[in-house]
Amino acid sequence: MKSFSGNYFEDFTIGRVLKHATPLTVNEADLAIYRSLTGSRYALYSSTPFAEAAGFDRQPVDPMIVFHVVFGKTVPDISLNAVANLGYADGKFMAPVYPGDTLYATSEVIGRKENSNGKTGVVYVRTTGTNQNGDAVLTYVRWVMVNKKEHASPAPDAVLPDLPKAVDAADLSAYAHYASYDAELAGSPHFFDDYEIGEKIDHVDGMTIEEAEHQTATRLYQNTAKVHFNQFEQGKGRFGKRLIYGGVVISTARSLAFNGLANAGQMIAINGGTHCNPLFSGDTIHAWSEVLDKADLSDTIGALRLRLVATKDLPCADYPYKGEDGKYLPNVLLDFDYWAAIPRSR
Amino acid sequence: MKSFSGNYFEDFTIGRVLKHATPLTVNEADLAIYRSLTGSRYALYSSTPFAEAAGFDRQPVDPMIVFHVVFGKTVPDISLNAVANLGYADGKFMAPVYPGDTLYATSEVIGRKENSNGKTGVVYVRTTGTNQNGDAVLTYVRWVMVNKKEHASPAPDAVLPDLPKAVDAADLSAYAHYASYDAELAGSPHFFDDYEIGEKIDHVDGMTIEEAEHQTATRLYQNTAKVHFNQFEQGKGRFGKRLIYGGVVISTARSLAFNGLANAGQMIAINGGTHCNPLFSGDTIHAWSEVLDKADLSDTIGALRLRLVATKDLPCADYPYKGEDGKYLPNVLLDFDYWAAIPRSR
Amino acid sequence: MKSFSGNYFEDFTIGRVLKHATPLTVNEADLAIYRSLTGSRYALYSSTPFAEAAGFDRQPVDPMIVFHVVFGKTVPDISLNAVANLGYADGKFMAPVYPGDTLYATSEVIGRKENSNGKTGVVYVRTTGTNQNGDAVLTYVRWVMVNKKEHASPAPDAVLPDLPKAVDAADLSAYAHYASYDAELAGSPHFFDDYEIGEKIDHVDGMTIEEAEHQTATRLYQNTAKVHFNQFEQGKGRFGKRLIYGGVVISTARSLAFNGLANAGQMIAINGGTHCNPLFSGDTIHAWSEVLDKADLSDTIGALRLRLVATKDLPCADYPYKGEDGKYLPNVLLDFDYWAAIPRSR
Repeated sequence: MKSFSGNYFEDFTIGRVLKHATPLTVNEADLAIYRSLTGSRYALYSSTPFAEAAGFDRQPVDPMIVFHVVFGKTVPDISLNAVANLGYADGKFMAPVYPGDTLYATSEVIGRKENSNGKTGVVYVRTTGTNQNGDAVLTYVRWVMVNKKEHASPAPDAVLPDLPKAVDAADLSAYAHYASYDAELAGSPHFFDDYEIGEKIDHVDGMTIEEAEHQTATRLYQNTAKVHFNQFEQGKGRFGKRLIYGGVVISTARSLAFNGLANAGQMIAINGGTHCNPLFSGDTIHAWSEVLDKADLSDTIGALRLRLVATKDLPCADYPYKGEDGKYLPNVLLDFDYWAAIPRSR
Repeated sequence: MKSFSGNYFEDFTIGRVLKHATPLTVNEADLAIYRSLTGSRYALYSSTPFAEAAGFDRQPVDPMIVFHVVFGKTVPDISLNAVANLGYADGKFMAPVYPGDTLYATSEVIGRKENSNGKTGVVYVRTTGTNQNGDAVLTYVRWVMVNKKEHASPAPDAVLPDLPKAVDAADLSAYAHYASYDAELAGSPHFFDDYEIGEKIDHVDGMTIEEAEHQTATRLYQNTAKVHFNQFEQGKGRFGKRLIYGGVVISTARSLAFNGLANAGQMIAINGGTHCNPLFSGDTIHAWSEVLDKADLSDTIGALRLRLVATKDLPCADYPYKGEDGKYLPNVLLDFDYWAAIPRSR
Repeated sequence: MKSFSGNYFEDFTIGRVLKHATPLTVNEADLAIYRSLTGSRYALYSSTPFAEAAGFDRQPVDPMIVFHVVFGKTVPDISLNAVANLGYADGKFMAPVYPGDTLYATSEVIGRKENSNGKTGVVYVRTTGTNQNGDAVLTYVRWVMVNKKEHASPAPDAVLPDLPKAVDAADLSAYAHYASYDAELAGSPHFFDDYEIGEKIDHVDGMTIEEAEHQTATRLYQNTAKVHFNQFEQGKGRFGKRLIYGGVVISTARSLAFNGLANAGQMIAINGGTHCNPLFSGDTIHAWSEVLDKADLSDTIGALRLRLVATKDLPCADYPYKGEDGKYLPNVLLDFDYWAAIPRSR
């Protein structure tokens, strides 16, 4: 068998390190294609002079692209036989990535627990993205439910990693400190001090996603998860349709969030995320944000901890989230928790 | 309110200058994506050696891309609450743009007139695109009908700018003078002297536009106009569908115009344009051109003033335009008037 | 008549050389867009450090892109009036192409034969792609059936070129010899010695193609063939739909073939190809390969001669190909025969 059909629960032994295939050199084209697919308008990732004035060596690659590319590499080894993507946590962007840098990904198995049905289990991996110099640029923990190869194989001892609910403010670092920052060019007069914990922001606009768009984005990241691409197979499945990669939802919602958070362009940590409901072609994404926390980072910048909620076919003027039963409303797609850097004042 | 919902008629005071957000560094990827979305084949914007032989420092950015990017920046400030885009005039491309250059846009309010209904008014702005050195690369006047914030607010004195019907030939300048020019590589044996005023050219081919294509193009330019992207909202509107950005029609028609005008690749001025009817996904664009005027520019080049007409689902062998009533035929999408440079002889 | 409506059978005189229009400077964006449209994951064409370690000067352009771009340039002159694309043969990739190189194409008429109906004829051309230094980077023979301009024109003497069934192993050359090669990063432990003649590989995955995707890919290559773009016209034709460019099928199948042939990323020759059945938007491509032959190239690399078969809406676990009548099965899209370089051992 020359083709590879993925790893099973039994293959994920604690401490095993998987070196993922296909290092990718990201370049200016990745930025432009990302922009054309998401509508991103953050000045930091659009303009070289703006990024340089803010403190970057040159125009950096949006951390969201870095996340998607690193994540994409892990799919053939980690989640090809996944029943479900359950969550991620403790994600930190550790160094800037510039056009011309090459991204590599490795994952270490840090936890696993067989489910009581004896057919599946949950696997925890810590994935690290590195550049061509071996510097870590991103780390995060992800857990997925995967099938067992043989139901008869004995359950291993359960190992569960200790995961923080959010990246500690003391562990946050931003790459740029916005020594020089033109708020008019950035597109908003609202800075760190203008946001209050508990404040909610409706991002107003909506974006409809087409099959060609989500497929193109997901291939850009070399993410090969079958459910996004194969209508012949998906047509016979539960939904009858291709599922849209959750990363497309995150990136679209983050791009919509420009309207209200234009100065919070630099994502520096991912605390967690839940993909609550599936998105399909033709659905329209809306988004709103809530300020969950604030942290001082330096004299010139702070960080906002933000909840980003995306919905389908539901505008967000009244911040749709969970029902009285504590469950996500059926039109809520995403509950994403992250830290973003933002200048302190104009 | 952290999110911005656009300016209203009252906000456009005469002389006000709006500095638009998100400077954009355009690069080779913008050229390639533009090519992949429009099918453009003009050698000047496809081949570095061809462009250099013609007199450019290196491969330039198609002026159409420059126009769309500058225009896109103005949308959140100028036309988010626009009822209609009424027209543009006096557009001049003033300096070449190269990959790596950053585009900025500002607009000055130069005219306004409240409509008799007291609910809307027409606003005129002169928009200027500049590069990272502060050099103007594009200027044009645009007028839009926008809503008043409060119907009760008093009508200001009407100010109407004086606009030329066409850019005067004496004001035209081309960036390249085609000292060396290979007509076979350019794709046509027809030069300045071969075109006659009044001559019409059917561009023969047709191009069908898909939702994913026009959305991707419009996001490439960071144009955020809601009507192009939000099916949830548009589905409840007059047409039940997303409207395609008029710039997609212009660029597709210009790309079809290669067949007949391959040597007139360099657009140097925009005299005016009318978007006569809306275009929707699945419609097929055809185009024809008419030579309106000719002008000498130098020993090696001249300029053609061209009318570019685009239609939907209607081939252009008999040059469809206006009916006996003087109104545009229902299948006519675009009536665009511009100047293009063209070599004088082979 | 300023617009060009293509050449007819009578225009293809033996020995005539056609210099095709629009040289194209390919760059990193072409690689990224190609990746985003095909899902290609071959490390050689994804990662600069990987390509350099393997022996390239820097990250090269995938030979498939080179083929599509050169082929695209020939369309307006060769196949605008083609009734059918009949085949190609004797294709050799002769030098690497790097981002920044400019591709030119010329074709020489090397054969023609009028059909007995007196209305059409078959034309054979040898097309050569060259770079900005005049070095040949690709050569191949292609034959198409084209319409006669006038049925009354006399049939010329038939001239048929002598074409090899496959490029001789002695004529093969690879650009990179994989002095350094990381199989884990490449994504497969299978090398030259692991493949046997007659071995078949199911590539497992499926990819559904959308209108926007094939149109965007085909325009990227500046291929203008009408049947791919004009729904208004195609809607009235035999299929009622746009035909997808056969090159999209080849590239998608080659990208799927990563799963089983990850180390055979470098295509070095095209022996022939048949597009057996048409592909339409919404169809899902699957693929399988057969090892037809093997050849030694150097101490470090060998070549596999591979048959690549693509199907629509038909998984390939049992290698669908031809029926008992010797005809291709109705769901078989492509029968493509090529040589690829592959490292000898790990």
